Amino acid sequence: MSDLPTFSDILTAEKRIRPYIQRTPVFTSRQVNRKAGCKVYFKCEPFQRAGAFKFRGACNAIFSLSDEEAERGVVAHSSGNHAQAVSLAASLRGINAHVVMPENAPAVKIAGVRSYGANLTFCKPTQQSREETAAAISEKTGAIPVHPYNQHETIAGQGTAALELMKEIPDLDFIVTPVGGGGMLSGAAITANQMNEKCRSFGVEPEGSDAARRSLEADSLIRVDQPETIAEGLRASLGDLTFAVIRRYADQVVTVPDSSIVRDMRYIWERMKVLTEPSSAVVVSALFDQKIDCSGKKVGVILTGGNVDLDSLPWLR
Amino acid sequence: MSDLPTFSDILTAEKRIRPYIQRTPVFTSRQVNRKAGCKVYFKCEPFQRAGAFKFRGACNAIFSLSDEEAERGVVAHSSGNHAQAVSLAASLRGINAHVVMPENAPAVKIAGVRSYGANLTFCKPTQQSREETAAAISEKTGAIPVHPYNQHETIAGQGTAALELMKEIPDLDFIVTPVGGGGMLSGAAITANQMNEKCRSFGVEPEGSDAARRSLEADSLIRVDQPETIAEGLRASLGDLTFAVIRRYADQVVTVPDSSIVRDMRYIWERMKVLTEPSSAVVVSALFDQKIDCSGKKVGVILTGGNVDLDSLPWLR
Repeated sequence: MSDLPTFSDILTAEKRIRPYIQRTPVFTSRQVNRKAGCKVYFKCEPFQRAGAFKFRGACNAIFSLSDEEAERGVVAHSSGNHAQAVSLAASLRGINAHVVMPENAPAVKIAGVRSYGANLTFCKPTQQSREETAAAISEKTGAIPVHPYNQHETIAGQGTAALELMKEIPDLDFIVTPVGGGGMLSGAAITANQMNEKCRSFGVEPEGSDAARRSLEADSLIRVDQPETIAEGLRASLGDLTFAVIRRYADQVVTVPDSSIVRDMRYIWERMKVLTEPSSAVVVSALFDQKIDCSGKKVGVILTGGNVDLDSLPWLR
Repeated sequence: MSDLPTFSDILTAEKRIRPYIQRTPVFTSRQVNRKAGCKVYFKCEPFQRAGAFKFRGACNAIFSLSDEEAERGVVAHSSGNHAQAVSLAASLRGINAHVVMPENAPAVKIAGVRSYGANLTFCKPTQQSREETAAAISEKTGAIPVHPYNQHETIAGQGTAALELMKEIPDLDFIVTPVGGGGMLSGAAITANQMNEKCRSFGVEPEGSDAARRSLEADSLIRVDQPETIAEGLRASLGDLTFAVIRRYADQVVTVPDSSIVRDMRYIWERMKVLTEPSSAVVVSALFDQKIDCSGKKVGVILTGGNVDLDSLPWLR
């Protein structure tokens, strides 16, 4: 695929979404550094609007629309964070949003979508059901799809998180992000590749939802149709576009077990006081479980989101 | 009392502790502003080292000691945050810390004290028992007491949080802090009084631990010996020094019920993704319950700490 998103697209996205997004802080923790044996820089997207990095991509996609397109409204499917992001971005642009969510999405994410005034439709918790339901709505209403990851504008928007991080910490050795559909890793890998040729980019997946690792190993797009992991934000497979970007620009995708994800989610809460969701904790697990050899390195990680159902914490189940 | 801590003491403390403390971020939230009807600036001390503002005061007290004094070690009593703060500050200075904690202190705070290598003694959960136990240790070992609030150096250290906040947001109308022993409110009131004569300072207490409000109303120091509130960090009464400072410099102390504290602690977690303890949430309750008329004002609040027992969240009890 020759028409991949570029670093220039990310720079354009950064200018476009700057008035709307939160420039999130970069945190460090001596305790994490000691435990991981490296210097870790946490880009804290739980503090992003709508509680996750997804707002960057949704905002870029929705503010890229022409006025004529925008009038038709937008439609999106998502386990939650992209749904909230699209709802908020659409409300900021003053247009309609139709949102498709799997019926097992966390209550807090459903409530978020409702609070931003989107039209909500539930579907079965499979990628196929999500895509079909969204397509049907698009056909019926004319609403324009905003893909959670497999779209140029989304990827370019997500890349702005890594862009901000690398402007603040230019000499990173590694950048590590979670992988679900691959939008964040795609944006980070393009950014790292352009801003610092020595910086390698890694993705982290739950063992029970390892479509990206499998796809890279097979060098062909593989789906995991019934992912099983507590990290509901990562229950997705790459798309053709994110696969092409990751194949070209990212170094490796590693996997971590759910037990490590729960342990390290709790660790981040206790030590760093940042409310992060399981999908974010995977990056810390990759460091603590030594899935990536980061000894002595400067490692940038994206804590991707913080939308957690506070009535159902994984260590209390 | 003529010998009160001064703004100059706070400036000196700021220079002394700067190499050791975290300069914490100031967060805002559109959702909070809408709900409170004012502009709120959150100084986020959960991200302070040892998880609470108490590290500022402990650090200032311990690094104010002469080498001869420091060699004798220090002793402190606390429900938790001051205990952790003294333990960490002592370990940074390389001296012994003896810590007295009530037997019902949260597990996470006990674990924190242990992790910093302090000598730990448990006592009954009353102010009298805490003070007597600490005094006995001091007498036996020669260790120098570091008071959690009723001491010049502690108050001056706590004042640096308000100092940083007001340097960043100079035109605050109000500054609002929790009140337990009154160290934070004392430091904030001195700072506000000096930096911006229009800025009024307020304290907030739980209804079940309202010694400061009662003392101001009676114009005489009143203790609440068996405080009942979920905000364990505020189960304390003013000392003579903090009473004198607050009486002179603070405008008012208001109270909020535990039901509001739990509701707003959860609100901060869900909307702001900052892990705050019940003792911090009181300031948000004062705004949301309109205990302070802040309509249209610029309001600085100190979120004081984030050391929460994650096995025992108040909305899941």
